Amino acid sequence: MAAISDLPSRVKIVEVGPRDGLQNEKTMVATATKVELINRLNNAGLSVIEATAFVSPKWVPQMADAPDVMAQITRKAGVTYPVLTPNLKGLEAAIASGATEVAVFGAASESFSQKNINCSIAESLDRFRPVTDAAREAGLAVRGYVSCVLGCPYEGEIAPAKVAEVSKALYDMGCYEISLGDTIGTGTPTKAQAMIDAVAKHVPVEKLAAHFHDTYGQALANLLAVLQMGVATIDSSVAGLGGCPYAKGASGNVATEDVVYMLNGLGIDTGIDLEKLAETGSWICDQIGRSSASKVNLAFAAKRSTAGE
Amino acid sequence: MAAISDLPSRVKIVEVGPRDGLQNEKTMVATATKVELINRLNNAGLSVIEATAFVSPKWVPQMADAPDVMAQITRKAGVTYPVLTPNLKGLEAAIASGATEVAVFGAASESFSQKNINCSIAESLDRFRPVTDAAREAGLAVRGYVSCVLGCPYEGEIAPAKVAEVSKALYDMGCYEISLGDTIGTGTPTKAQAMIDAVAKHVPVEKLAAHFHDTYGQALANLLAVLQMGVATIDSSVAGLGGCPYAKGASGNVATEDVVYMLNGLGIDTGIDLEKLAETGSWICDQIGRSSASKVNLAFAAKRSTAGE
Repeated sequence: MAAISDLPSRVKIVEVGPRDGLQNEKTMVATATKVELINRLNNAGLSVIEATAFVSPKWVPQMADAPDVMAQITRKAGVTYPVLTPNLKGLEAAIASGATEVAVFGAASESFSQKNINCSIAESLDRFRPVTDAAREAGLAVRGYVSCVLGCPYEGEIAPAKVAEVSKALYDMGCYEISLGDTIGTGTPTKAQAMIDAVAKHVPVEKLAAHFHDTYGQALANLLAVLQMGVATIDSSVAGLGGCPYAKGASGNVATEDVVYMLNGLGIDTGIDLEKLAETGSWICDQIGRSSASKVNLAFAAKRSTAGE
Repeated sequence: MAAISDLPSRVKIVEVGPRDGLQNEKTMVATATKVELINRLNNAGLSVIEATAFVSPKWVPQMADAPDVMAQITRKAGVTYPVLTPNLKGLEAAIASGATEVAVFGAASESFSQKNINCSIAESLDRFRPVTDAAREAGLAVRGYVSCVLGCPYEGEIAPAKVAEVSKALYDMGCYEISLGDTIGTGTPTKAQAMIDAVAKHVPVEKLAAHFHDTYGQALANLLAVLQMGVATIDSSVAGLGGCPYAKGASGNVATEDVVYMLNGLGIDTGIDLEKLAETGSWICDQIGRSSASKVNLAFAAKRSTAGE
């Protein structure tokens, strides 16, 4: 009989809805809506909110207003607003906007790297190095993303050793945290543990974040598995914003509400007000005309409407 | 660092879609559709399929065709088709229909017992005793359900000791298996483990089944937690049929597809063909005009449509 053990007492949630989430929404979202979303997330107690991406508007039109978003949000003390910067041009714009943390994104799958950012994994790391160097010189913290850590839409299974290799390269480059993305959501709990185990041999486990997608409904079970390995940072998206770009109509990012509900039940502190968070989730769904992918959100809404009958 | 351990090598899935699932669907489902659903589940490799309920058609009109369903399904060797029988009248009809396994359903919450079956827990147990006695005399196996094991819509928290008490009473009465229902889906992993721990002090853990709802998205994480406690029987519903009667529009039974996906990933044998199961889930959703509550189902469908673009 194996009781759940070794859970962290506190987990840091990295809210990725305004960037990773909205980026995958088809409808263009107004800058004012993005700004209000970030401010509401602030008020719900989120301490890390990925705000936007400084990328080519040709490739990602949804993020074309990155400087405006950064200028208009109400920044709170103790809260960070990381932004994505794939290259030096993006980094310069991010610095000009007052960003204090940036992120670069690599992949653990060669095919995915080629199709997603048009270069090999090695080439992508070579491209990130000047970005991380310049960012750190300017006093910015840099986060590293690794995608496809539990499977690739083109290659299928990905070796944990490959994930470890890319993670180590980003860590050695100066990334203070490595976010491990189950991009297509095909991971299951023991696989997630094996992957973390492999990576933690090269990067301290307290520097790892779990960025799991709920495409096959496995995200919370996988998170429960890796929390027990010492992972204490979780990326998630309010209302499950984003969907899965590799299987249209399917779920993407795990919903922050569902993660916080589980963590609350496990007695793990997040500093987040679940009611306010769920309200924010309902609000942004109304704004962009989609239904929530958070079951907690749907259950709260159903309870309200059932009570009002 | 706590690796997942003590997992069972094989799990028995009790498919409750045709009864627990359809019972909560508003639209009346044709007998022929119910029969085909059960036959399809058979072909997907399910070995226990809860087929119907012998209850008053006044209370549960959806189950009024119970004798017809039992007469028309194609019974396979080695597969059981339990039916619900709340009283002697139901039991007699079940025996006449050729049922080999029946079930009685109690609650771990006094308020829920009163509102759901109009009597106290003690009174409900007194009513079940002649049913279980007569069933066993007739050579039928009897399953006992306990609802509200991780929370009650009226009382909130339920003491694990109360769940243990009711479970023990049903087990002592001759129920060969006790199905522990998180009726409103509010459980989280450590609570689920504490509940199993309390019950297993009175009923052998190999006689327990986890019947978890996914209303707050927690079901798979909770299942992962109790699998490690020795629970090796899981109740679930194809396509998540059923919804939550206590929060309309929210999820109910965890979807069989999502459970099997996780178990496959964990290397746990179920004997079920996931592709055929998911096809069955899509088929029944088409028949009754609802969307699937299984994320695996939605991901499979989205992959098919994305591939076909």
